[in-house]
Amino acid sequence: MSLLITGGTVIGPTGAIAADVLVDGETIAAIFAPGQGPGVETLDATGKYVIPGGIDAHTHMELPFGGTSASDTFDTGTRAAAYGGTTTIIDFAVQRTGEVVQDGLAAWHAKADGNCHIDYAFHMILGGVDDDSLKAMDQLVADEGVTSFKLFMAYPGVFYSDDGQILRAMQKARDNGSMIMMHAENGIAIDVLVQQALARGETDPIYHGITRPEALEAEATHRAIALAEVARDCPLYIVHLSASRALEHVAAARDAGRNVFAETCPQYLYLTLEDQLGAPGFEGAKWVCSTPLRSKHESHQRDLWRGLRSNDLAIVSTDHCPFCFKDQKERGVGDFSKIPNGIGGVEHRVDLVYQGVVDGKLSVERWVETISTTPARMFGLYPKKGVIAPGSDADIVLYDPNGRTRISVETHHMNMDHSAYEGYEIAGRVDTVLSRGEVIVSDGTYHGAKGRGRYLRRGLSSYLV
Amino acid sequence: MSLLITGGTVIGPTGAIAADVLVDGETIAAIFAPGQGPGVETLDATGKYVIPGGIDAHTHMELPFGGTSASDTFDTGTRAAAYGGTTTIIDFAVQRTGEVVQDGLAAWHAKADGNCHIDYAFHMILGGVDDDSLKAMDQLVADEGVTSFKLFMAYPGVFYSDDGQILRAMQKARDNGSMIMMHAENGIAIDVLVQQALARGETDPIYHGITRPEALEAEATHRAIALAEVARDCPLYIVHLSASRALEHVAAARDAGRNVFAETCPQYLYLTLEDQLGAPGFEGAKWVCSTPLRSKHESHQRDLWRGLRSNDLAIVSTDHCPFCFKDQKERGVGDFSKIPNGIGGVEHRVDLVYQGVVDGKLSVERWVETISTTPARMFGLYPKKGVIAPGSDADIVLYDPNGRTRISVETHHMNMDHSAYEGYEIAGRVDTVLSRGEVIVSDGTYHGAKGRGRYLRRGLSSYLV
Amino acid sequence: MSLLITGGTVIGPTGAIAADVLVDGETIAAIFAPGQGPGVETLDATGKYVIPGGIDAHTHMELPFGGTSASDTFDTGTRAAAYGGTTTIIDFAVQRTGEVVQDGLAAWHAKADGNCHIDYAFHMILGGVDDDSLKAMDQLVADEGVTSFKLFMAYPGVFYSDDGQILRAMQKARDNGSMIMMHAENGIAIDVLVQQALARGETDPIYHGITRPEALEAEATHRAIALAEVARDCPLYIVHLSASRALEHVAAARDAGRNVFAETCPQYLYLTLEDQLGAPGFEGAKWVCSTPLRSKHESHQRDLWRGLRSNDLAIVSTDHCPFCFKDQKERGVGDFSKIPNGIGGVEHRVDLVYQGVVDGKLSVERWVETISTTPARMFGLYPKKGVIAPGSDADIVLYDPNGRTRISVETHHMNMDHSAYEGYEIAGRVDTVLSRGEVIVSDGTYHGAKGRGRYLRRGLSSYLV
Amino acid sequence: MSLLITGGTVIGPTGAIAADVLVDGETIAAIFAPGQGPGVETLDATGKYVIPGGIDAHTHMELPFGGTSASDTFDTGTRAAAYGGTTTIIDFAVQRTGEVVQDGLAAWHAKADGNCHIDYAFHMILGGVDDDSLKAMDQLVADEGVTSFKLFMAYPGVFYSDDGQILRAMQKARDNGSMIMMHAENGIAIDVLVQQALARGETDPIYHGITRPEALEAEATHRAIALAEVARDCPLYIVHLSASRALEHVAAARDAGRNVFAETCPQYLYLTLEDQLGAPGFEGAKWVCSTPLRSKHESHQRDLWRGLRSNDLAIVSTDHCPFCFKDQKERGVGDFSKIPNGIGGVEHRVDLVYQGVVDGKLSVERWVETISTTPARMFGLYPKKGVIAPGSDADIVLYDPNGRTRISVETHHMNMDHSAYEGYEIAGRVDTVLSRGEVIVSDGTYHGAKGRGRYLRRGLSSYLV
Repeated sequence: MSLLITGGTVIGPTGAIAADVLVDGETIAAIFAPGQGPGVETLDATGKYVIPGGIDAHTHMELPFGGTSASDTFDTGTRAAAYGGTTTIIDFAVQRTGEVVQDGLAAWHAKADGNCHIDYAFHMILGGVDDDSLKAMDQLVADEGVTSFKLFMAYPGVFYSDDGQILRAMQKARDNGSMIMMHAENGIAIDVLVQQALARGETDPIYHGITRPEALEAEATHRAIALAEVARDCPLYIVHLSASRALEHVAAARDAGRNVFAETCPQYLYLTLEDQLGAPGFEGAKWVCSTPLRSKHESHQRDLWRGLRSNDLAIVSTDHCPFCFKDQKERGVGDFSKIPNGIGGVEHRVDLVYQGVVDGKLSVERWVETISTTPARMFGLYPKKGVIAPGSDADIVLYDPNGRTRISVETHHMNMDHSAYEGYEIAGRVDTVLSRGEVIVSDGTYHGAKGRGRYLRRGLSSYLV
Repeated sequence: MSLLITGGTVIGPTGAIAADVLVDGETIAAIFAPGQGPGVETLDATGKYVIPGGIDAHTHMELPFGGTSASDTFDTGTRAAAYGGTTTIIDFAVQRTGEVVQDGLAAWHAKADGNCHIDYAFHMILGGVDDDSLKAMDQLVADEGVTSFKLFMAYPGVFYSDDGQILRAMQKARDNGSMIMMHAENGIAIDVLVQQALARGETDPIYHGITRPEALEAEATHRAIALAEVARDCPLYIVHLSASRALEHVAAARDAGRNVFAETCPQYLYLTLEDQLGAPGFEGAKWVCSTPLRSKHESHQRDLWRGLRSNDLAIVSTDHCPFCFKDQKERGVGDFSKIPNGIGGVEHRVDLVYQGVVDGKLSVERWVETISTTPARMFGLYPKKGVIAPGSDADIVLYDPNGRTRISVETHHMNMDHSAYEGYEIAGRVDTVLSRGEVIVSDGTYHGAKGRGRYLRRGLSSYLV
Repeated sequence: MSLLITGGTVIGPTGAIAADVLVDGETIAAIFAPGQGPGVETLDATGKYVIPGGIDAHTHMELPFGGTSASDTFDTGTRAAAYGGTTTIIDFAVQRTGEVVQDGLAAWHAKADGNCHIDYAFHMILGGVDDDSLKAMDQLVADEGVTSFKLFMAYPGVFYSDDGQILRAMQKARDNGSMIMMHAENGIAIDVLVQQALARGETDPIYHGITRPEALEAEATHRAIALAEVARDCPLYIVHLSASRALEHVAAARDAGRNVFAETCPQYLYLTLEDQLGAPGFEGAKWVCSTPLRSKHESHQRDLWRGLRSNDLAIVSTDHCPFCFKDQKERGVGDFSKIPNGIGGVEHRVDLVYQGVVDGKLSVERWVETISTTPARMFGLYPKKGVIAPGSDADIVLYDPNGRTRISVETHHMNMDHSAYEGYEIAGRVDTVLSRGEVIVSDGTYHGAKGRGRYLRRGLSSYLV
Repeated sequence: MSLLITGGTVIGPTGAIAADVLVDGETIAAIFAPGQGPGVETLDATGKYVIPGGIDAHTHMELPFGGTSASDTFDTGTRAAAYGGTTTIIDFAVQRTGEVVQDGLAAWHAKADGNCHIDYAFHMILGGVDDDSLKAMDQLVADEGVTSFKLFMAYPGVFYSDDGQILRAMQKARDNGSMIMMHAENGIAIDVLVQQALARGETDPIYHGITRPEALEAEATHRAIALAEVARDCPLYIVHLSASRALEHVAAARDAGRNVFAETCPQYLYLTLEDQLGAPGFEGAKWVCSTPLRSKHESHQRDLWRGLRSNDLAIVSTDHCPFCFKDQKERGVGDFSKIPNGIGGVEHRVDLVYQGVVDGKLSVERWVETISTTPARMFGLYPKKGVIAPGSDADIVLYDPNGRTRISVETHHMNMDHSAYEGYEIAGRVDTVLSRGEVIVSDGTYHGAKGRGRYLRRGLSSYLV
């Protein structure tokens, strides 16, 4: 069955063209100069942007954390993502310390299989680097379509890897062509600050941010870059970069021609330590995430937007890891260190970054590139995903620059009892969402179905320099 | 008339796809998944790269310089360009000091009109900034399709503008949306070094390079960037960047989110002060150009390739300004300062940058981006030029990665009695060249015609951040 | 005649010691462990700091400027200096454009001879670099005790030298061992901004600062450093550095091991664009100086104090160039560009920098070093001046850390009808001042005499690395 | 008893003066202009430099390491130091992991007490940071005259502290005014490289250097600086800095006004990875030390000398830790990781740095400052030590710039069976050495005695900014 998307403006990383897009079954069959397409059923995109479906490269559906689990399942989370114009997620499968890597991956397949509304892939979190997990890395790359591995310099005793483990994993990644993703915070030092704060009775949510200072994110970022250099320039991707000085280290590495990349998240572009994390009472718990929100009295947000413009920040992901305020976030009343870490936002990323276009902080080309094309290239999904091109999956979003979106817990589709962006207004709107040729969202109505999403075996990154 | 280019690999800045390209008349009508196109005449591109035609953003056909003129006319130069896979040039019209800007532009139109084999556009060199030329800038942007203006910090008494003139032109460009291009060398200081060298009897061609040290290119680059900042971040494009430290200043400005861009040229990527400019006797005169070739004992070439990877260098242009050795270059025997400045290379740019891909210095995506897509975006020609997309001009090159090209004066088509790259071997080959749908080169044979090239009125840059 | 200064704390750049200082005639004869000195007349310094007399390396007594002259003569200015604990000044002799260098020097000798209360030396301002003035540089170094030459990148048509002239003077200084001092502002660009501001009717004193943006001081500073590099690392001294980004360039050059130095002045450490230059009505004219006061909303003052701590700023001078408000500053009513440039402060430098010690911004060692020892070393006066050591001139200040000083036009001794620091309180006080063994100030009373000051022939700098 | 040192040139950090120095008993009583001193016994210093005795701030006498002990006792080592013009050492007392800090200090007192030929002080190595050792830091500062504490980022399982321990110790030092000294190498990552090298059969001494790459020294240096920042700018002193990029991090911190300091050692200024550590066979073991010697193909030595000039390197110490080749170094035959780490040089530091003066790499002022004055100021010994001033200890060296010194195992006085600098010629010579007024070396003869050296209780650093 064929569908011709007509009258729209197709936007890619290098610019916009007027073109009609022919969808045939699950893929794009052709792109025509306006009016040149065949006489098939049409979808009118007049006045709309036609962009490749969003790819959220950092989600944590159903993640167990701090005695509870992220409140979105693969079912609820991917459905919410679809509403927001995201047609692919890359979630993190987890090897717990002591567990067999492949068992962790299998467990995540079990959670996702049959439950997703959009296509999905996995990164692998390594909960411990040893001879076995190093061998597993090769197997996952070769056989499982998992080509990126996340390590933690934070969370000692939970996910933490020491510098020797990191170095060994980087050497392995360098050899098998995969990529290391890094949570870059000096968790050993942070834990000292946390214990000292608690001992002083500083238990409110804002101390979560105060005990994770910029200097310790910047330090870890620098260290990860240094270790990747020792591993003969292993490709390195810094997750959820939040702070100006961490960005400076990434920029310096990139100026030096290194394969160092970074993402930021909407929360760091819009929210702050004082206004959100420092909200009265325990309210700030809603915004407890790591890396933390940064001070509005410094230049972080301005610098992050600039990094997105200059490509020192390559991608905007969400680090979607929602917890309800009631019962979940509340586990940390009286002790900020017990608040589950995470913010939910998988539904709003496409909108929130678009608002940067409206505000003059980003070009429309970079919008598409940071939310879709670069994630696809970075993580081995291109050109199946991330581009409007013949042969690519027909994951397409019609975005209405004249529409408006109001974010609220009243209207969102994530399984959260609050919204991190309550009341935010976006001067644009997701109009129609196609996933592999199927219109799954139109006019705010969902037409898809649980289980239609497929697992994506990823190749190696095509983004390396 | 329609033509379907089949079986090729279409390459753009974000990656490669297998696709068939339908040309209808002068433009691209559609792009199809392989085998999905209509039953029209076909051009077999199996095993070949299908790329947008090259855009050389820096040429000087017929430029009067030092009592003689560049040896390629618009006729010979654009024909040679076509042979080499370049389907658009942007040449520099010249306002001589004291002349009316529009008269200079008219003179260049007169040279080019009816003589070009491929499409062409003009930048405007301002030989003096004053109230009249500032007004003329507005008129050229509004009416003439000239949206970029070149100034010189070198050549006192010829093209030189002082910092006040530069600032005023930048303010004007900032206001009318155009771009300032800068020859960034401190010509006032260089002239002192030149006179001192000549006074010491240092007259050989190599002293041309020695008297133009890296520090004075870096200084001028830094100064141009500072003046552009004072002009409220006027877009600035540094031409023919040759030196590591100049690149550092560009990189720093770009890290800071500034609209600062730069090009380099093949001569700086391959040739050196010692090996070429320092050739025995007067031979080095062949490689006298400004900025000069740099020392092989420093890291310039490595850094320039790195800059191309990281996009601190956005474009490779040629600064094509050929002079014959006999009678032209020889004007400087006994006085290097009288050697006409310029190297010819418009025919070899696509090949020479491709060789960087073969050598592992550049991705195939960046090859296409630096020689075609970014020049189009930077200088207001996108998406008419610089991209394989429906509606775009059918300027298409089939490039054979299994072919070979040997550069030599014996076989080149430029009007030069020597080659700057004599004997260089390229592990690739321009197979077929289409200009606005017409096959003008195939199998090494030229099928085009003088006068078929059209003047392109350019819009404002779509590359600004 | 002998005098033993007893009971004090002698402070030098590396620390403080308890010691008694024996003055014999004009020089220091010996330094004793406390109580070990001979039985001669004593001067009780108990509870006081004993420091070498202040050296103000940048003054402009009687300087003709903008149709008037600086209001302090060598008589009034040096007497005021003595009151403030300064026992040596280095003033700027001026070669006006077209004048013979030696004639300019002779004119300054004529002004100073017989009129000074303290010792004095001269730098030479070169109003034009040509073959004659270059020769004169050699002669002044060899015969006249003038070993530093100031050039201007600002004031086109008045003191301005172009980059070629600067380069030639630097080469000469490099050869004869002298030092180039630089007023680093891009005057060519500034003049454009000034004319544009006036054309817009922006005539108030604050526009003097707004039309001299930090970027143009930083640019010129960078350029001067680059030219000095081309001149084979000619020693370079940046005068009256006022801005953070200029300081960054100096710091970078110093990190690179270059002979690049800088001074700042008290006005940049205490006064701001908004609070002083932007005072209501025409009041701001009092603080018109170049480089201008900088914005309090930026980090200039914090950075300058830091530069003093780290020795990226080596010296605090005053750039003393006073003009009365009435009749002199008032020449610029309705046109800020006609306000004579200059602030008077020769009397308060020792105090104002000491206040930084009290405020915890500077160590007491650096206080002595920046106001006395380094100026002496930098400009070829060490160890005759700048140190409490046997054989040195007995230029000694007893400074009372328990005293207090209130700065006011009511009490100051400079020939000015206002004070730039009116009402400032200093938590310290100049108690006693010896110049070549003579107590010229004690208890706020002046005991010296006009004409007792001697001209100092300076040697080459002993500060180079 | 009094002694007048006459006719010499007294050199301090700010310059040289001609002066006579009166020694009375153990201290300096006075300094006189030449010829002004009293009629007591004289020591003729004509033609010689009179400098404060050298202070070696980093020695390891009798240090147990890798199953053996450093071959110099406090007896042999301090006697050798005296021969070489060093009159004070600061050795490292060691708290072994699990040991009480004060017990470690007592053990070192026991080794030194009654055995030293010159005065000595102690830093304290903390072998484990916990509540007890943190309390001990306060006690040592308050009562024991130990005001600096060394931590290791290298040697996991031996001396290694993790980042949390480091942070806690830094916070403590910040509070009690003491200083943290850091062995900055990422030992966790290095151990991985070492194990991998050994597994590949790379067992020669040169692999000691290859497995400790510059990147891991630079990384740890950066990390230590970051942790010190989090500890509210705790004073930090990087020991034995060897690599250009580590120096860059120190320079950046210093430009930022931070209390960050560093020392280098003669071995890094003269010896290289290839020429010494890579000597044929097992010979290279003589030069196994950590940080390791660096490659001669990089710019380390040039950069380190530059750092000494610019004060980014404040001090030259020796890290004197000698092991005999026979039986000691030979423990590592077949396994470089078993070679005891250390080079002996306490006898040659004053000479080796002076050679830099001769070679034009350092001023004579900086020679005195880096080997004596700054160590005294940095580590709380000033003005008792490190300066020629009334009241200071009469630790004085007469250094003959016309003498010559040849370094050889044949003639040195350290307890080593080889010399790291065998055959080096120094264009200068230690002529006479006074320690607290006593001539202990003259004409190459030792006149002192074991046990005459006293323990120095140090105060807090007076060097902080």
